[in-house]
Amino acid sequence: MAFNFTVIKKDASSAARLGRFVTAHGEVETPAFMPVGTQGSVKAMSPRDLEEIGCQIVLANTYHVYLRPGVEVIRELGGLHRFMGWKRPILTDSGGYQVFSLGALRKITGEGVQFQSHLDGSSHLLTPEKVVRIQEDLGSDIAMVLDECIPHPSSREYARASTLRTIRWAERSLQARRKSEMALFGIIQGGMYEDLRLECAREMTGLPFDGFAAGGLGVGEGQAALRAIGEFTAGLLPEDRPRYLMGVGRPEDLIFAVRAGYDLFDCVLPTRNARNGTLFTAAGKMNIRRAEYTNDPRPADESCDCYCCRNFSRAYLRHLHQAGEILAAYLLTLHNLVFYQRLMENLRRAIREDRTEFWLQDRNLMLQHSESE
Amino acid sequence: MAFNFTVIKKDASSAARLGRFVTAHGEVETPAFMPVGTQGSVKAMSPRDLEEIGCQIVLANTYHVYLRPGVEVIRELGGLHRFMGWKRPILTDSGGYQVFSLGALRKITGEGVQFQSHLDGSSHLLTPEKVVRIQEDLGSDIAMVLDECIPHPSSREYARASTLRTIRWAERSLQARRKSEMALFGIIQGGMYEDLRLECAREMTGLPFDGFAAGGLGVGEGQAALRAIGEFTAGLLPEDRPRYLMGVGRPEDLIFAVRAGYDLFDCVLPTRNARNGTLFTAAGKMNIRRAEYTNDPRPADESCDCYCCRNFSRAYLRHLHQAGEILAAYLLTLHNLVFYQRLMENLRRAIREDRTEFWLQDRNLMLQHSESE
Repeated sequence: MAFNFTVIKKDASSAARLGRFVTAHGEVETPAFMPVGTQGSVKAMSPRDLEEIGCQIVLANTYHVYLRPGVEVIRELGGLHRFMGWKRPILTDSGGYQVFSLGALRKITGEGVQFQSHLDGSSHLLTPEKVVRIQEDLGSDIAMVLDECIPHPSSREYARASTLRTIRWAERSLQARRKSEMALFGIIQGGMYEDLRLECAREMTGLPFDGFAAGGLGVGEGQAALRAIGEFTAGLLPEDRPRYLMGVGRPEDLIFAVRAGYDLFDCVLPTRNARNGTLFTAAGKMNIRRAEYTNDPRPADESCDCYCCRNFSRAYLRHLHQAGEILAAYLLTLHNLVFYQRLMENLRRAIREDRTEFWLQDRNLMLQHSESE
Repeated sequence: MAFNFTVIKKDASSAARLGRFVTAHGEVETPAFMPVGTQGSVKAMSPRDLEEIGCQIVLANTYHVYLRPGVEVIRELGGLHRFMGWKRPILTDSGGYQVFSLGALRKITGEGVQFQSHLDGSSHLLTPEKVVRIQEDLGSDIAMVLDECIPHPSSREYARASTLRTIRWAERSLQARRKSEMALFGIIQGGMYEDLRLECAREMTGLPFDGFAAGGLGVGEGQAALRAIGEFTAGLLPEDRPRYLMGVGRPEDLIFAVRAGYDLFDCVLPTRNARNGTLFTAAGKMNIRRAEYTNDPRPADESCDCYCCRNFSRAYLRHLHQAGEILAAYLLTLHNLVFYQRLMENLRRAIREDRTEFWLQDRNLMLQHSESE
């Protein structure tokens, strides 16, 4: 089954669209949020938990599984889906984001990027070609090209050189692809410079990618720049292919980005926050460590019907977290992912019903409203 | 519903018996193994996981929940069952085992035992009366009397004085009980001295307890002494009340102890070993950290049908454990508890069919045989 994306409906008041794409491992309704499975596991979740909460697709980090257990092991065992016990689609990143984050441990060459493993210091070279092959060996449904996520702030000069390199690497990535059933997405970089974004998008969208991502956002540029550059970049991308806003983010960012025309999202926030004791609720963020919850019999989110909220009190969740119990990570992660799933479901419904603008007024009220229907 | 125990069938070749007891939170078929929920949670498991694998009853540690979050919090929230979201029976220990393990941080007085919290150094006094009240406040189905688990080795003189104190405390515990629906079990101590065990059992079984436990075993005395004193003590206990062998243990110990006539067991081994990467399988113990499993596609236990073994390879479990993923603790704990559940189910069936003696010959073969039926 070759990758295939359809826009089902456009929103009346924004660039938002309801869509669907098809992969060898099933369909995904968009806009969709992808939980992050850094090391071949969405932290604290089993595949059946993810299926239960309606998760359609997960993101796996190529860098982490490349280093451990290694691509060869996963390939031999039948690919990442079988390895993880996950039957639905997987998007893999290129590893570039992690490699470029290594700072002094990496070096860019004409060929690609040389780096030392954060685990054992061993030396590795990632090239655009190798990154495509790795993702093919993993059996990814959607692969990302190797790019540089330009740090913020960066000079115009650096941003331009980096962006041109990302474009050259994108061309090499397409030439390296051997498996047509694996979708390959190009990534628009350009830092916070609109003309560079424009130049990059013009080059990238001239190439036969199955979808396009906006990269280099959510890297400390602040909400105003994120939204300005995010919306600007979305407008440069073709309507007939999925648009993926990488690594973003907070519920309010997702609402904004869906209205800007993005279809796919990933972020560690719901899972990482859960392990730190922070819950997303219809009434806003909740820090379960607070003393006021010591004997609070209410569920974390009174408008939520997830397993956590149906069965456990804030008092119990606080106790589990304070006691360092694994069950705290489990229950809070489950709830936060349900919150994100619900948010995306509600956004899809809002597009269907042409009422996404209400979400901008009060996302929390909107969540409560949608959930009580 | 008052506590009630029935022996359904006795084994032809040993003192083993098939039984059933009834509590306000449902029935338990014996022999039964209780997973340990130290801090109000069986580590890495949710209540629905425990229900799924057929867990009938859990043990909760009074010491830990007394210190955090505190008994008052749990009582206000409707008791330990509601707090934990666990609807089936709970047995609570007295806290004595943990307090006596504190060493220099505790001091025995005529009244009870004074100790300092391992969490914040605060000072507390546990008396037999207070321990009964705490367990009543928790809403325990089966409470244990305050006793001293005599360390090994101990002099005869110390063991005798301690045992006599345990007997006096047991009498005070019975007088303190106010809730008749909570079963109260006496504990037989006496160290490794058969005459002290006899004296203790004679006194304890003269008191109107709902069941009796053998304490002070599995404390480093070695397998021979454990079995000798364990079997000797079981023989001193009345047939018409449940017999609980506290804190024991390994699968082979459980097989032995069931044949000696014990009905109830608890141990942290299946859950603690899981977090350390050790699995119980029909082929013996397996350390998932071993390099030989790096690319092993087989399930951990090829004869097991648990969620872990149905869906994941040894290679994946090893990877998760090496990467420190929470999912490793979840999957290994689930499997180990299923192993213990299966062991107990098979032992109950063996009693029904008068073939417990086969288990002594080869427990692993027997497990495989029983599971493939």
